Amino acid sequence: MSETLKGALIIGQSGGPTSVINASAYGVIRTALDNPAITKVYGAANGIKGVLDDVLYDMGEEDANELHLLLHTPSSALGSCRYKLKDSEVDDTDYKRILEIFKKYDVRYFFYNGGNDSMDTCNKVSKYMQKAGYECRIMGVPKTIDNDLFGTDHCPGYASAAKYVATSCMEIYLDARVYDTGMICVLEIMGRHAGWLTAAASIASQFGHGPDLVYLPERNFDMDKFIADVKAIYAKNGKCIVAVSEGIHDATGKLIAEYGAENAPVDAFGHKQLGGLAANLANTLKAETGAKVRGIEFSLLQRCAAHCASETDVQESFLSGKTAVECAVMGETDKMVGFERTTDDKGEYVCKIKLMDLKDVANTEKKFPDSWINAEGNNVTKEYLDYVLPLIQGTPDMVYENGLPRFAKLKKVVVK
Amino acid sequence: MSETLKGALIIGQSGGPTSVINASAYGVIRTALDNPAITKVYGAANGIKGVLDDVLYDMGEEDANELHLLLHTPSSALGSCRYKLKDSEVDDTDYKRILEIFKKYDVRYFFYNGGNDSMDTCNKVSKYMQKAGYECRIMGVPKTIDNDLFGTDHCPGYASAAKYVATSCMEIYLDARVYDTGMICVLEIMGRHAGWLTAAASIASQFGHGPDLVYLPERNFDMDKFIADVKAIYAKNGKCIVAVSEGIHDATGKLIAEYGAENAPVDAFGHKQLGGLAANLANTLKAETGAKVRGIEFSLLQRCAAHCASETDVQESFLSGKTAVECAVMGETDKMVGFERTTDDKGEYVCKIKLMDLKDVANTEKKFPDSWINAEGNNVTKEYLDYVLPLIQGTPDMVYENGLPRFAKLKKVVVK
Repeated sequence: MSETLKGALIIGQSGGPTSVINASAYGVIRTALDNPAITKVYGAANGIKGVLDDVLYDMGEEDANELHLLLHTPSSALGSCRYKLKDSEVDDTDYKRILEIFKKYDVRYFFYNGGNDSMDTCNKVSKYMQKAGYECRIMGVPKTIDNDLFGTDHCPGYASAAKYVATSCMEIYLDARVYDTGMICVLEIMGRHAGWLTAAASIASQFGHGPDLVYLPERNFDMDKFIADVKAIYAKNGKCIVAVSEGIHDATGKLIAEYGAENAPVDAFGHKQLGGLAANLANTLKAETGAKVRGIEFSLLQRCAAHCASETDVQESFLSGKTAVECAVMGETDKMVGFERTTDDKGEYVCKIKLMDLKDVANTEKKFPDSWINAEGNNVTKEYLDYVLPLIQGTPDMVYENGLPRFAKLKKVVVK
Repeated sequence: MSETLKGALIIGQSGGPTSVINASAYGVIRTALDNPAITKVYGAANGIKGVLDDVLYDMGEEDANELHLLLHTPSSALGSCRYKLKDSEVDDTDYKRILEIFKKYDVRYFFYNGGNDSMDTCNKVSKYMQKAGYECRIMGVPKTIDNDLFGTDHCPGYASAAKYVATSCMEIYLDARVYDTGMICVLEIMGRHAGWLTAAASIASQFGHGPDLVYLPERNFDMDKFIADVKAIYAKNGKCIVAVSEGIHDATGKLIAEYGAENAPVDAFGHKQLGGLAANLANTLKAETGAKVRGIEFSLLQRCAAHCASETDVQESFLSGKTAVECAVMGETDKMVGFERTTDDKGEYVCKIKLMDLKDVANTEKKFPDSWINAEGNNVTKEYLDYVLPLIQGTPDMVYENGLPRFAKLKKVVVK
């Protein structure tokens, strides 16, 4: 065990938000506030930009109950950014500024809560501080609905998004087949490169209420095959529900969402009209089948629907933040908190925390396993169900007020 | 009290489904199965079409636990239709057929669970049976997310949709302002003629996390004013969230959703591309402001998201079905079950059942009160909040299985 390092801590959040990224942040903040080694706990406004701009919130000023509500408050409470640090060898301006701020506030702990790019930021800052000889323990606390971080069994944020997608697919299934007339539904789900979240639509199907067809970006999308797949199901059942990943692309790599963008229609105001992928595919299927077709994009809701989160995910996210602080105080640095799946003596799912080198996770994407996609490329296999089911268990223990979720309201007192 | 009328009961569901229409149906089915006056309980497959086609399910064959799950199962479990009966004076073919089926199964109770058009169907069938001298007690059990039925304080199904809309608006609000860059969101909410459901977006705003602007179809929509409204908010806050009703129209009555449809763009496949209202307005605002803009259509989810239902709505829906059966057995006929709002001795909200003549409710729409829309026509007033808050209380007591809602699976045994 290393010598106790005393100093302040900064936590920043970065990248697209999730339903549970604040649960991780709360794990960091609560644990840090309670740890005597940590003299001050600061939240960076809008991630690394808050550090660069010297806009830090004093988390010690927050009401403990409001902080606790972060467990079930979606989106990034501290604000987020999509700021990419240059290589310090090319331009070290940002790094010098970060070091200046770290020194100004005696920051000895820096925690970054985000996805792939955030782990890259974290890694770069860590390497720079080491080179500069400034002692600072730096930890990555992951989140992503895409579930595409390398080396971890799964990512905080994924299971809640998956649960929302599966629940919504079940509900839409019941709604979309209520009439005795034909109906085709196209559901568009997030995931540009990885199909993990779209695969979650199949959880609903496994229990008898979900999409008939599921297309992931890990396989090339063939429009003719797709139309034939849908027609076959529609001819048999008079209904068809399809889930597609926003990132599906043809064999040349061209996104299906961009099909037809060249012809770039304009509306009555002269504005270019860009339909989404779901709308485009719905139009195509309507023309091909004559059926009533509806395109539904799950849009932001799939990543922010905290009311439908997985409590397992909430608790694991909290644990990842908490463990990150505990490990850093014990001397760890330069690590990302990851999950390892194991079982207890009854064979029940157990999630264990493991630490991984930041350099190994930054910028590496974990795709959906090819062997979990069926031969036809239009659905996923039972292996995925075994993988995902333990992750989506438990309904969130939300606080309600006026019939609506009571989300955290932070004071965000900026440090002078 | 009338003499007890013995015979079978048919319940049918009609029109667009809701999260709680099955709670009403369960109120009818459970109460009828338990009532000695009612010899058999049949569910009509796809509403009145099931009667015409002689496809009836024997509800006595269902497992009691599965029936109980109907309380929290969205969409119309018996199937729905959008079949409009002709006037019997013009063409009485359908009516003769209905009478034939009623006689065949000794049907003395007919319950129809639906919106405006369904109350019309109910009324027509009732009047015909009276003329034909066939004793049958006929009751309308209302549902509609549109909340537009005349003479009742509110409609079963509205509050759950409102709660979903308000909850989702709160969550999207947090997500859509996470970055320190500009962002405009346009949320499209159901309601062709009545703005009740779109108004629910403002519940979120009242608690500090919701749309800045809300446009209902009760006022003419002026595109220039709209753009100016959004620009003003965006200039001030750098963010703007707008909720619009799908039915907004200009002063000539033309739907805004149809703006630009003449120029009818085609995609690479030669298919006409029709964007939704949200997408159209998003494109317009993007061109006008240069901001990042996102259009989100709540689509089917707003009417089928049972996982986010109002338990108050669930219980009131059940009660409306239950009371309909009790009143019919007592001798009532030709009525729709309505709600009257009152308060207990502590001033707390109480919902009382009242019976209304079917002829008074059929085909009459209740619009959102003009006095509850602000002077600018871009939001609703506090009166609406006082009206709606009691209705959205309570989280649904759902049964979960495998981490997902366990919805009812009926056997649907067709009567030979």
